[in-house]
Amino acid sequence: MATVMSPLRDETARRTTGEALQGALVDLLDLSLVAKQYHWNLTGPRFRSVHLQLDDVVSLARKAADRVAERAVAVGVNPDGRVRTVADTTKIRQPDGGYESDDKVVASMTDILAQIIARFRERIEATGRTDLVTQDMLIGITADLEKQHWMFEVQTQ
Amino acid sequence: MATVMSPLRDETARRTTGEALQGALVDLLDLSLVAKQYHWNLTGPRFRSVHLQLDDVVSLARKAADRVAERAVAVGVNPDGRVRTVADTTKIRQPDGGYESDDKVVASMTDILAQIIARFRERIEATGRTDLVTQDMLIGITADLEKQHWMFEVQTQ
Amino acid sequence: MATVMSPLRDETARRTTGEALQGALVDLLDLSLVAKQYHWNLTGPRFRSVHLQLDDVVSLARKAADRVAERAVAVGVNPDGRVRTVADTTKIRQPDGGYESDDKVVASMTDILAQIIARFRERIEATGRTDLVTQDMLIGITADLEKQHWMFEVQTQ
Amino acid sequence: MATVMSPLRDETARRTTGEALQGALVDLLDLSLVAKQYHWNLTGPRFRSVHLQLDDVVSLARKAADRVAERAVAVGVNPDGRVRTVADTTKIRQPDGGYESDDKVVASMTDILAQIIARFRERIEATGRTDLVTQDMLIGITADLEKQHWMFEVQTQ
Amino acid sequence: MATVMSPLRDETARRTTGEALQGALVDLLDLSLVAKQYHWNLTGPRFRSVHLQLDDVVSLARKAADRVAERAVAVGVNPDGRVRTVADTTKIRQPDGGYESDDKVVASMTDILAQIIARFRERIEATGRTDLVTQDMLIGITADLEKQHWMFEVQTQ
Amino acid sequence: MATVMSPLRDETARRTTGEALQGALVDLLDLSLVAKQYHWNLTGPRFRSVHLQLDDVVSLARKAADRVAERAVAVGVNPDGRVRTVADTTKIRQPDGGYESDDKVVASMTDILAQIIARFRERIEATGRTDLVTQDMLIGITADLEKQHWMFEVQTQ
Amino acid sequence: MATVMSPLRDETARRTTGEALQGALVDLLDLSLVAKQYHWNLTGPRFRSVHLQLDDVVSLARKAADRVAERAVAVGVNPDGRVRTVADTTKIRQPDGGYESDDKVVASMTDILAQIIARFRERIEATGRTDLVTQDMLIGITADLEKQHWMFEVQTQ
Amino acid sequence: MATVMSPLRDETARRTTGEALQGALVDLLDLSLVAKQYHWNLTGPRFRSVHLQLDDVVSLARKAADRVAERAVAVGVNPDGRVRTVADTTKIRQPDGGYESDDKVVASMTDILAQIIARFRERIEATGRTDLVTQDMLIGITADLEKQHWMFEVQTQ
Amino acid sequence: MATVMSPLRDETARRTTGEALQGALVDLLDLSLVAKQYHWNLTGPRFRSVHLQLDDVVSLARKAADRVAERAVAVGVNPDGRVRTVADTTKIRQPDGGYESDDKVVASMTDILAQIIARFRERIEATGRTDLVTQDMLIGITADLEKQHWMFEVQTQ
Amino acid sequence: MATVMSPLRDETARRTTGEALQGALVDLLDLSLVAKQYHWNLTGPRFRSVHLQLDDVVSLARKAADRVAERAVAVGVNPDGRVRTVADTTKIRQPDGGYESDDKVVASMTDILAQIIARFRERIEATGRTDLVTQDMLIGITADLEKQHWMFEVQTQ
Amino acid sequence: MATVMSPLRDETARRTTGEALQGALVDLLDLSLVAKQYHWNLTGPRFRSVHLQLDDVVSLARKAADRVAERAVAVGVNPDGRVRTVADTTKIRQPDGGYESDDKVVASMTDILAQIIARFRERIEATGRTDLVTQDMLIGITADLEKQHWMFEVQTQ
Amino acid sequence: MATVMSPLRDETARRTTGEALQGALVDLLDLSLVAKQYHWNLTGPRFRSVHLQLDDVVSLARKAADRVAERAVAVGVNPDGRVRTVADTTKIRQPDGGYESDDKVVASMTDILAQIIARFRERIEATGRTDLVTQDMLIGITADLEKQHWMFEVQTQ
Repeated sequence: MATVMSPLRDETARRTTGEALQGALVDLLDLSLVAKQYHWNLTGPRFRSVHLQLDDVVSLARKAADRVAERAVAVGVNPDGRVRTVADTTKIRQPDGGYESDDKVVASMTDILAQIIARFRERIEATGRTDLVTQDMLIGITADLEKQHWMFEVQTQ
Repeated sequence: MATVMSPLRDETARRTTGEALQGALVDLLDLSLVAKQYHWNLTGPRFRSVHLQLDDVVSLARKAADRVAERAVAVGVNPDGRVRTVADTTKIRQPDGGYESDDKVVASMTDILAQIIARFRERIEATGRTDLVTQDMLIGITADLEKQHWMFEVQTQ
Repeated sequence: MATVMSPLRDETARRTTGEALQGALVDLLDLSLVAKQYHWNLTGPRFRSVHLQLDDVVSLARKAADRVAERAVAVGVNPDGRVRTVADTTKIRQPDGGYESDDKVVASMTDILAQIIARFRERIEATGRTDLVTQDMLIGITADLEKQHWMFEVQTQ
Repeated sequence: MATVMSPLRDETARRTTGEALQGALVDLLDLSLVAKQYHWNLTGPRFRSVHLQLDDVVSLARKAADRVAERAVAVGVNPDGRVRTVADTTKIRQPDGGYESDDKVVASMTDILAQIIARFRERIEATGRTDLVTQDMLIGITADLEKQHWMFEVQTQ
Repeated sequence: MATVMSPLRDETARRTTGEALQGALVDLLDLSLVAKQYHWNLTGPRFRSVHLQLDDVVSLARKAADRVAERAVAVGVNPDGRVRTVADTTKIRQPDGGYESDDKVVASMTDILAQIIARFRERIEATGRTDLVTQDMLIGITADLEKQHWMFEVQTQ
Repeated sequence: MATVMSPLRDETARRTTGEALQGALVDLLDLSLVAKQYHWNLTGPRFRSVHLQLDDVVSLARKAADRVAERAVAVGVNPDGRVRTVADTTKIRQPDGGYESDDKVVASMTDILAQIIARFRERIEATGRTDLVTQDMLIGITADLEKQHWMFEVQTQ
Repeated sequence: MATVMSPLRDETARRTTGEALQGALVDLLDLSLVAKQYHWNLTGPRFRSVHLQLDDVVSLARKAADRVAERAVAVGVNPDGRVRTVADTTKIRQPDGGYESDDKVVASMTDILAQIIARFRERIEATGRTDLVTQDMLIGITADLEKQHWMFEVQTQ
Repeated sequence: MATVMSPLRDETARRTTGEALQGALVDLLDLSLVAKQYHWNLTGPRFRSVHLQLDDVVSLARKAADRVAERAVAVGVNPDGRVRTVADTTKIRQPDGGYESDDKVVASMTDILAQIIARFRERIEATGRTDLVTQDMLIGITADLEKQHWMFEVQTQ
Repeated sequence: MATVMSPLRDETARRTTGEALQGALVDLLDLSLVAKQYHWNLTGPRFRSVHLQLDDVVSLARKAADRVAERAVAVGVNPDGRVRTVADTTKIRQPDGGYESDDKVVASMTDILAQIIARFRERIEATGRTDLVTQDMLIGITADLEKQHWMFEVQTQ
Repeated sequence: MATVMSPLRDETARRTTGEALQGALVDLLDLSLVAKQYHWNLTGPRFRSVHLQLDDVVSLARKAADRVAERAVAVGVNPDGRVRTVADTTKIRQPDGGYESDDKVVASMTDILAQIIARFRERIEATGRTDLVTQDMLIGITADLEKQHWMFEVQTQ
Repeated sequence: MATVMSPLRDETARRTTGEALQGALVDLLDLSLVAKQYHWNLTGPRFRSVHLQLDDVVSLARKAADRVAERAVAVGVNPDGRVRTVADTTKIRQPDGGYESDDKVVASMTDILAQIIARFRERIEATGRTDLVTQDMLIGITADLEKQHWMFEVQTQ
Repeated sequence: MATVMSPLRDETARRTTGEALQGALVDLLDLSLVAKQYHWNLTGPRFRSVHLQLDDVVSLARKAADRVAERAVAVGVNPDGRVRTVADTTKIRQPDGGYESDDKVVASMTDILAQIIARFRERIEATGRTDLVTQDMLIGITADLEKQHWMFEVQTQ
């Protein structure tokens, strides 16, 4: 496509917004993969509770990734959700292979979500200067991530 | 976990079955990512039809991946769906970044599905010698993949 | 269409599988028409029960016919469900016109289903040598047909 | 059954109404078979749209056929929906076997629906003199057929 | 209320239409009571089938009565569905008290429906001269009554 | 039917219980007719609210009548819900014909419900000595009637 | 589009039918806008009841407008639902701007519906001579409009 | 568990209530097994009606058994639903193996339900002296059983 | 309101019943607040299970409170659910502020429910002498509370 | 719990945000109690409309309270929803006990909502400086409260 | 209505917010009419896809218009959605009458949405200074409009 | 019944298949009883998770038992699900009576499922030589049992 209309005011706004969305996309796609990895390889007495909560995270992450990617193309930036891109740019600490106990998974998810949230808060700040529509979407996703973070963290007590 | 009961008759059966399932898992996880990538970056007059059909593929691939991974752990093999593993072992030809026209996407999906199907047919054969329960699951997934393949291929005429 | 990819291993497999599917398609389409014919022209004290059960058969036959025909085209064989083809190749013993009593309808359906089942069992055997995916679909449909056969047959006692 | 009460005023009314309903039944049953035939053997870039629209026609035709046949028996006339009867008395121009391109299918469906509609309009006129209840049902079905005709015809422009 | 607008063209049309609707209302309300009476006091081997079919009639009669009564008031005529009015003006042959065998109930319902239908056909004719909107509603209800009549009558064979 | 098993301890218990249920049936059937009569002929600024609330009463009364009548036959007493029986034995004060203002309808429904409730409370007492199962059903229906009574009565303030 | 098949018998029938449908379309689109205008600007003690009833009218009008417009194009006449056309040809008396009390809104809706109904009755008559399918649709919509008219009118008493 | 709080007033009340509930549990679990046994091995012209009604009994019995068992543990008594306990303490007359005709099944179910009802009525009396909450639950279940009893018994006429 | 009809036999019955219902209302409203307080401030490895079970309690308590309050006004007694009334008259031991571990919450809920149940059992006894309809409602709510009590208590073992 | 991660930037932000959320929680919990109090004790001709609208407010307030409290704990602040806390800190003007006429309830709800809205607008401003995620949630709740305020206020005209 | 409480801080804020909402209302109402006009008069091979997508736009526009108008009255400004107002103040480029090809419709919708979006972005900016609640609502609607814009624009490539 | 058609090729095939199905039926019926026994008598901190998971097993076992028994009769073998038969032929190690801790229940279910699975795998092998339709059903049930086994086993780690 030669030229795409972007609703944003200039190229800088478009680039900044695009970077925030691409970063969010990588976070969310990898979050969905990590949560599934734990969902499958989990062990321990809390198996059923954590297994189900991890699927809530997967569902949240998949829906948010779709909204974020469609938002990117709507502002004239191509989202990149290819596996190589996600593998090379993800900042999420990766799980070890094999079985993982429920205690470790809960601690790990608490940590992973805390770091994703920190990055989303930076993106909220950045897009607040370039595109309020994108910012509002990121705020909504952050609310959901922070709720999940709380629900994992209190289980570590 | 120290020892896990496997319902399969011996270690060879378990290993062969596990390899088939791990291969299927990588195919299906990457298929879901590739189909989403096209879903977002698609252009052309057939946009809406292809956009929707790609989401049917994503839905099929996600459900099948979950069944395959849970089958692996049920036979005593840890599934590995981490992004690095998928990126390094996928055999699916990767999309270019950026916009992609509907014609090219339809052709590409036809090609990708044909190659996944060929690998699934090998896995059906392999697991027929080691675990009929796994084989039956792979047969069901192959039926769905071949239906999608047909529906993309006839659009290239 | 010039060339269609078939997932089957050779032309013989494709032809054998295609013949089994075409035969199944004719059986199922005519079964849906015969069951409707009885559904409409039925008389007798058991009218309501048999009338409803016949619609269960119609529903089963229509869904199965659709799956069978789409399976045929997925393996590279064009299904033929035109009325002339069905009329000329059906092996189902045809109902007389006009009203038909519930006793006769139950006996007739028991008989018709028994003969269709015999033909499906041959197709299961044939496709077991050519395409396990098709075979698995035919096995599932046969299970449903045999359940209906049982439920008609015990009413004749 | 020896004698059936017919709500119609005389034998002529019953015969005329019965002929209209039997004609409609044959049109609708064959319409459902033809639309399925195209649904399965369709090719071309518009595959998905036309494939889905054809199933709307199948659904419409099946429901209407059921209402028409039950109306026939309710006025004391046995509907005949056997495959031989449909094959021998259908007036619908039959599809060729094998793949059919979307352009041709759309043109063919436009033509087939136009001719069925012409016959339904004659039946509306005929039953207006013999049975307003039947006429009202045929009017409702004609509305649906004319809507489908419009939606195919405008695609040929 | 002093004056009510009636959409009908004159007082004669209003009176004729009102009489047709009041007659239909009494038929339908009493039909719902008679069918419930049989529903509760039924005996015999066909109990379950007939018990359920009678509730289909009750449901049909209640919905139709509501439409008919609301139509009456919409054309400026007060419907009268009080029990004394229904008891004094119903033309339906009343059931005996106590248990009633399924054979007798089926025969009785066939007969009752036939007579209601005859009265509805007169009302269709009458309102065809005064109000097409009312006529159309009565035609629709008659179609449902004739379908029920058929389904009881064929059980008497 | 020659002899019917009654779960009650003696003929007196059966007769007392049967009378309570038959009385309740007449109350509920006529309540449903009266509430519909007002539903159709209502006028005034509160039309919509009262019109909808009356249908809640109709729905409550119909479901309760069905439970009461089926309870009667379950204890070996034939319920009598024929229109003549209801007309001759109802104790509900009948509405005048024609339009009725919302104020009058609310007052009338308050009054009618109060009197039905008084009769139900007597039946609860009577069946407490003969059949706890019937009593429990009547208690549940009374709770619903008293709720409706409250909701009409407070509108008269 | 060069030539469109019309199922009607001649150009006069097509023109008369088209005019009836275009008139109905303007009535219904403006009815939906007027009812929304009152829905938003309503005041008074009956606010909630009238607010909700107005949305029932909006819903009825939108669905009917869609059916009418699709019927027009199905008989070969382009419907015109553009805002300028509706504004210039509507015959509905327009609301004042700003708040409107519930009493006035009820009176106004009673009046507006009465006049729309009068126009629909003319269209029923006109299309009765040119297209029974269109007439039947207009009869059904008129039934709904007359029901709404009744329910507003009785609130003015 | 060392000590469990029981809401009942003393040990006698707890023991009596517990025995009633354990007896009810055995009746209901075996009723569900017997009804399924007949559901599967039924023959005769009334097959479909009786087959479906038996599943209503199974569903009723399973839900009631669950409520009864959870009530037992809630009052501090361990329910015992093990197969050996049910086999050794059931008072239900057992079916013969093999096919059973619809006439015999209907008669047998009538008889079995009558005897279960008699035992439930004793339990209602016993728990009326020890725990009104348990009694109320048993009353509700008895109402359902007596309704089923009626619906089988009238089919034997 | 000057005078309200009460269905109860005298002023004493009304007062006793009213006191039982007001006491139940306070218990249930505060139960809903306490359970929510724990739902939000919960910590520990069993977080998810207890968090969800607490919401089951909230839902149960809210529905029961509504039924109890509407029952009070239906017998002519004004329910008082104002926050000051609940705070001053609640007998539930209040939670501390801040985080609370899952062990403590489970123990606390077991204790709170046991005490509410004791009070409900007194109310069942009191209303058994004044109003069987109210008593029946309290019995049903007690059954639900005792089920929840059991499910918390067994978690403390 | 020793230390909880808060996503907010510093202790001041956490405290300010926490105070806004705690204030909102008290407002919403008491709003749900007040609206229920009126829901139960309401009288007057508009009873049904206002009764239902009050339940819309209860539903809105309960859902919002839950979101607000979970947001508080997600930012590291324990919400306090105990009845004593709500009673002592609520700023809502309390209802009198006993019956309350619909006019007074509508006026009172208009007033109560106006004051809650004023407090929410201050909280929106305060959290705009400390936490955009919390602010966004409060903005959404305020939109719902202002809609309810409008719908009560226009009823006072 | 004499005086309406506005939650906004002063008359200027109220006026600016009101103008933004009135402008948005006109845009959305006319968008719904234009999209319907194209929905009905569309031609070309992409008919079905575009026909369905246009209805997504209609649905989006109708829901958004309702929210915007209710927001206006909630801040004390009367929304004006009368047809004359929309016709005179709309800024949307109007469609020609008659058939319109799918290519032209897609281009036109892309253009119309782009211009509406530009106006919404101005309104977001304006209301950011006067009412954050209104701004948040406009941001949400803009997100939906920009998604639709993207999905039309990429079809023009 | 004198002679029943069996779709299997000879008496040996029928007998072998019948034995496999009867064995599976006993396993599944007893599994449903054992899982319910644990569901009711469970204690310990994991109560809620295990309680719910056990009901998943009950649901799975009941549905599978029904399919297996209906399959038996469809191949001409009478299933025997009477309690005495199950008690005498079950191979499942029986639970002790009374409370059982969650740890023991999880270990016990893991063990029970492992042994049932071993027997199902033998039945898959046996029916592979006699009836592919039966084998396919047993494969599907085994997949579900192995999934449950995995989900219990990993909780023992």
